[in-house]
Amino acid sequence: MIAIIGTWKMSSAGVFEAHDLLKGGAPAGDAVIHAVTRVEDEPAFCSVGYGGLPDRDGHVMTDAAYMDGATLRMGAIASAENIKNPILAARLLCGRETNCLLAGHGAELFAIRHGLDMRDMRTEESMRRWRQATQERPERLTAYTGHDTVCVLGLDAAGHLVAGVSTSGLFMKDPGRVGDSPIIGSGFYADDRYGAAAATGLGEDIMRGCLSYEVVSRMKHGQNPWEACQGALRELSARKIELGEDAGSISLIALAPDGSYGAATTLSCFPFAAARGDGHDLFVTDSHGKVRDVGEAELIGVD
Amino acid sequence: MIAIIGTWKMSSAGVFEAHDLLKGGAPAGDAVIHAVTRVEDEPAFCSVGYGGLPDRDGHVMTDAAYMDGATLRMGAIASAENIKNPILAARLLCGRETNCLLAGHGAELFAIRHGLDMRDMRTEESMRRWRQATQERPERLTAYTGHDTVCVLGLDAAGHLVAGVSTSGLFMKDPGRVGDSPIIGSGFYADDRYGAAAATGLGEDIMRGCLSYEVVSRMKHGQNPWEACQGALRELSARKIELGEDAGSISLIALAPDGSYGAATTLSCFPFAAARGDGHDLFVTDSHGKVRDVGEAELIGVD
Repeated sequence: MIAIIGTWKMSSAGVFEAHDLLKGGAPAGDAVIHAVTRVEDEPAFCSVGYGGLPDRDGHVMTDAAYMDGATLRMGAIASAENIKNPILAARLLCGRETNCLLAGHGAELFAIRHGLDMRDMRTEESMRRWRQATQERPERLTAYTGHDTVCVLGLDAAGHLVAGVSTSGLFMKDPGRVGDSPIIGSGFYADDRYGAAAATGLGEDIMRGCLSYEVVSRMKHGQNPWEACQGALRELSARKIELGEDAGSISLIALAPDGSYGAATTLSCFPFAAARGDGHDLFVTDSHGKVRDVGEAELIGVD
Repeated sequence: MIAIIGTWKMSSAGVFEAHDLLKGGAPAGDAVIHAVTRVEDEPAFCSVGYGGLPDRDGHVMTDAAYMDGATLRMGAIASAENIKNPILAARLLCGRETNCLLAGHGAELFAIRHGLDMRDMRTEESMRRWRQATQERPERLTAYTGHDTVCVLGLDAAGHLVAGVSTSGLFMKDPGRVGDSPIIGSGFYADDRYGAAAATGLGEDIMRGCLSYEVVSRMKHGQNPWEACQGALRELSARKIELGEDAGSISLIALAPDGSYGAATTLSCFPFAAARGDGHDLFVTDSHGKVRDVGEAELIGVD
């Protein structure tokens, strides 16, 4: 059973194409990379890759990670500038015994040395957003509400699970801020034996519950991906409410070794794209765990 | 019940003093900070703080984290230069809703802005080691065998658990390399309800199993800290061996809300310092899970 799932409507085109790749026999890694790079390359998706959301100083700093569920190895970059496709750097770093998580200039140096394409990731539009925000100075930073991190989980015919995530992180973040995306166990996790999971939303909150590892751990103990996502998110949200906080802005996706998938969100509308066997669809779920198969047309104005 | 535990012999003096602070009513955070800064400030402990192990380019780049088990909030710095006490930056970052994990120059900027002491962390001795290593060019990087990351877990009379970790990371690491220490769930985790855990050794391997979160998760499900450390480490080691690797170089410590503690290691000798109630001792454990109360004198030549 082949399967692939991606966060937000923005991932759907790439996820459906990646599904075709999987049907043609491609390994999960290639499918995931296809889906993630397609979002990175599109400047209209302003929270990932080219044209991403700038930090407080006007720099587009990216976080990305790639994990191979067969070997439990991962590669990731954090707070890296000018790497055209952050997910490609993450994939190259995966498989190294050491030095597989690189931050800042070190990540850029790695990308240049390995011949990856470099580019100024700022666009006119990202600079316009930044100039406007520097005027407004928001008191509290929140996850971008339209869409956010692209997370893709793929399962190939050989039973291998791969997770890939990429983001420009929190809009107007402090210089050097790293979110959950390049943090194993928080932003992503994949283990061929039990499943894969990934998270999008406010990284600082996702990290408090190591949510991706928690989801995979629940699958290991017998929960299906839907139960695992719902359970992990419910537990952290309950703790946050006990602490006097709101439930926050977190969404999760998961994929099991049998190709079944699941999701959970604290939002009123979290779209995700999923494909399994021969079929593929766009779905939305909400904070009550209701899920609905929707068409692209129903989500006009949503990415 | 108050309790405190720290990795390696090098932590013992600070851990025992911190134990006195806890007996005097100090909060766990102050006790943990005391124990960690004491190791950071001592250049003879060459894998942490001042006089730490340089990266490939001769820079001493530090990773540190601090987690508050009451709020599940953490602060961490990754790949940061020139911050005299990395753990103090991590503690200051803890409690922020956003921007609590900072890498590189962003972390330094934060430290300077908040009035933390800055210093060149290189010593004559660390430069001598680096010059020698640049001649030798080891084929494979391994965790420093004498000692490594300082990890301290503290429990105060109010029942609060705090985790603090600090390291200069893998000797001769690539520029920008980040290990497990500032990665929540891998290098450290603390939850007042279930326990705290921390890891030292080859960060890239520790991260593959999100070992600190796994240990706390096992305590949540009823295991004592000893069972939790042994079980989590055994499981990852078994997987590594299935994958054709060796068990690697990993050591774990854990502390439960009742003050009981535990440890596990893949090494033949992993020293740790622990104090509970009125007593405190130096212990060693090995890869078979045997533990032995030892005196300082027995460990001459070990840090």
